[in-house]
Amino acid sequence: MAKKSIVVMKFGGSSVANVERMQNVARRIVETKTKNTNVAVVVSAMGDTTDEFEELAFKLSKNPPVREMDMLMSTGEQISSALLAIAVKELGHDAVSFNGNQVGIVTDTNHSKAMIQTISGARIKDAFKDNKIVIVAGFQGMTENNEITTLGRGGSDLTAVALAKALDADVCEIYTDVTGIYTTDPRIVKEARKLKQITFDEMLEMASLGAQVMQARSIEVAKRFNIPLHVRSSLSKEEGTMIVKKLEKIEDICVTGVTLNKNEAKITICAVPDKPGIAAQIFDEVSKADVNVDLIVQNVSRDKTTDISFTVPKSELAKATAATRKISDKIGAGDVLEASNIARVSIVGSGMRSHHGIAAAMFKTLADNKINIDMISTSEISIQCIINKEDAEKAVSVLHKAFELEK
Amino acid sequence: MAKKSIVVMKFGGSSVANVERMQNVARRIVETKTKNTNVAVVVSAMGDTTDEFEELAFKLSKNPPVREMDMLMSTGEQISSALLAIAVKELGHDAVSFNGNQVGIVTDTNHSKAMIQTISGARIKDAFKDNKIVIVAGFQGMTENNEITTLGRGGSDLTAVALAKALDADVCEIYTDVTGIYTTDPRIVKEARKLKQITFDEMLEMASLGAQVMQARSIEVAKRFNIPLHVRSSLSKEEGTMIVKKLEKIEDICVTGVTLNKNEAKITICAVPDKPGIAAQIFDEVSKADVNVDLIVQNVSRDKTTDISFTVPKSELAKATAATRKISDKIGAGDVLEASNIARVSIVGSGMRSHHGIAAAMFKTLADNKINIDMISTSEISIQCIINKEDAEKAVSVLHKAFELEK
Repeated sequence: MAKKSIVVMKFGGSSVANVERMQNVARRIVETKTKNTNVAVVVSAMGDTTDEFEELAFKLSKNPPVREMDMLMSTGEQISSALLAIAVKELGHDAVSFNGNQVGIVTDTNHSKAMIQTISGARIKDAFKDNKIVIVAGFQGMTENNEITTLGRGGSDLTAVALAKALDADVCEIYTDVTGIYTTDPRIVKEARKLKQITFDEMLEMASLGAQVMQARSIEVAKRFNIPLHVRSSLSKEEGTMIVKKLEKIEDICVTGVTLNKNEAKITICAVPDKPGIAAQIFDEVSKADVNVDLIVQNVSRDKTTDISFTVPKSELAKATAATRKISDKIGAGDVLEASNIARVSIVGSGMRSHHGIAAAMFKTLADNKINIDMISTSEISIQCIINKEDAEKAVSVLHKAFELEK
Repeated sequence: MAKKSIVVMKFGGSSVANVERMQNVARRIVETKTKNTNVAVVVSAMGDTTDEFEELAFKLSKNPPVREMDMLMSTGEQISSALLAIAVKELGHDAVSFNGNQVGIVTDTNHSKAMIQTISGARIKDAFKDNKIVIVAGFQGMTENNEITTLGRGGSDLTAVALAKALDADVCEIYTDVTGIYTTDPRIVKEARKLKQITFDEMLEMASLGAQVMQARSIEVAKRFNIPLHVRSSLSKEEGTMIVKKLEKIEDICVTGVTLNKNEAKITICAVPDKPGIAAQIFDEVSKADVNVDLIVQNVSRDKTTDISFTVPKSELAKATAATRKISDKIGAGDVLEASNIARVSIVGSGMRSHHGIAAAMFKTLADNKINIDMISTSEISIQCIINKEDAEKAVSVLHKAFELEK
């Protein structure tokens, strides 16, 4: 008998939002199982469960304790995993659900955003021996002292990837409501093309730059342990996009996708004295205000001062500006300006590093279309431009065309 | 400093059905806590949660596996305990919620109706040392193999009583939507009077005979370990009814209450051959059909045959009748008759055994009011009559008056 392959299948909340969808997911699971495969499924909370729990908790307290929030939130995934096990059994295949505690997912004690430390996986392997399909409640773990923890938003992806590692799975399938990763958002550019393959690094850029299919943290873990991810739709059987270490063949295409993020705002400190350690001082102060700074741009100085600009999530603009004003006064810098009508448009591609002229082509395309560039930043595999929000969709569209991504 | 007393407070699902009621319960808990008391709270699932879960599960399967049902159902209490801990903390008192696993409630493996084997209570005692209010998810436990179990309907009462035992609590308070135990149902007899005290034995008769305030199993456990129960309202501060081993003073009243049960049906097997072992044969067959037989009446035989009548829950009448017909044929008995328009009216009282003429007074009262008695059964502390369903409320009313229970 051929050795059984092991597949981890992860289904998000919208895939199990009601009885019909849950039955559909159960059929998908059984189809995979019947291909001489051991199947471990990771499932998120049904539909809006998580939001409903949060609403209840915030009605009781403006600042509910994180330990109790984890007790509360973790039930959402336990509910959906038990129901999914019932649905699978109804199809005549033996199934068993486990919560984070039962499956042996040990985390640190950092409630609401715990880090996985170890996964035993012993109970899953035992269940595999009994030919059972295993349904695991995503998003949760347990500390060594038997306290329930959750892994933060998108944590079910992380559960799936970590389980794939613990079980030495052949592939980790991430089922979503899209059919894969596209060259750009199909709602903006109708010629957007589904990618057959993408590298972890490209996907990380895509994820952090606004293509919200998978959480960056999970992709990083998959990359570290080289676990192939397959992003695909729970509603269609077509193949999705494989996320892999290296593309199978060196493709001629060097730009893989165009991404857009409209959830950022920009802060500029003018006339910052050009002294060593000044940037450190600024961002130390901003991080103390619990603000997530993303893009930072500082140009060469002129007249012994320089301007420093950075972006923050729009929701954190007020506290970020306050913190920045405080440090600006302290270091004797000039005005602090804020702008929220910005967008970040980026091109991403592993091939980029070995091709010249990509950046120039991007800037020329934007210029030809009268789109002004406010800030620029580059990484090994991306070029990012902050532009006016009003130009965002147009920028995505013309860049997608310029780099011939529809082909 | 005086030794702290320990109180276990149990709140049912309707007491925590929404945010406002939960806040009310939190205030009650804090009031008790501030009387130099350590408080362990047991809470049921919010309002209709349990029914909603069952509905979902039964949409997925007509016969959902009990192991998965326990995974599902146990989340209801975890949700309410976490939310209640949040509500209590919001009032400035430290609180912590535990599920069945965390609190160390070890049960047998009998899913959906597990029996508690041991309770460690260690985490609760530790939390008491830190001056914390402990909120325990009712209705659930854990097997030695880390499988989640539930204790069956009314299981939160059992959690509360068992915890009171494990913690050596001074009292176990059962909060409900009624203000205590009444001499009879106040909806039927408006003169019904709240009892200050009632014995475990009387309460057991009341519970099994249809006064649905507390589950019989929990009262039995409280009786075995002599844990005083205080049944009271979560909405009012008035004292409820104490359920105790022995009444404080021998009261003159010998009848404590009148109860009514309209959820039974009656089966009669006519002309059963009067041979040793025949009753055993009949009820063995009926119990194999998974029917809960309650009252059994067999009169002395006449012409070497006898009639045997018994009551079953109305919902089990069809399968009970089928099983009875089968065994009736086998043993050569006569017709099997069924009737569902019956009611059981009973008088209950510890004093009864030492008073003569109580039974006669009951029968005379019914006769005077032209209520025909179909079957009679007596225990040490109760007399039960099966009558026509149409006469039920009238019977309760005239008996309540005849025994002067309103005084």
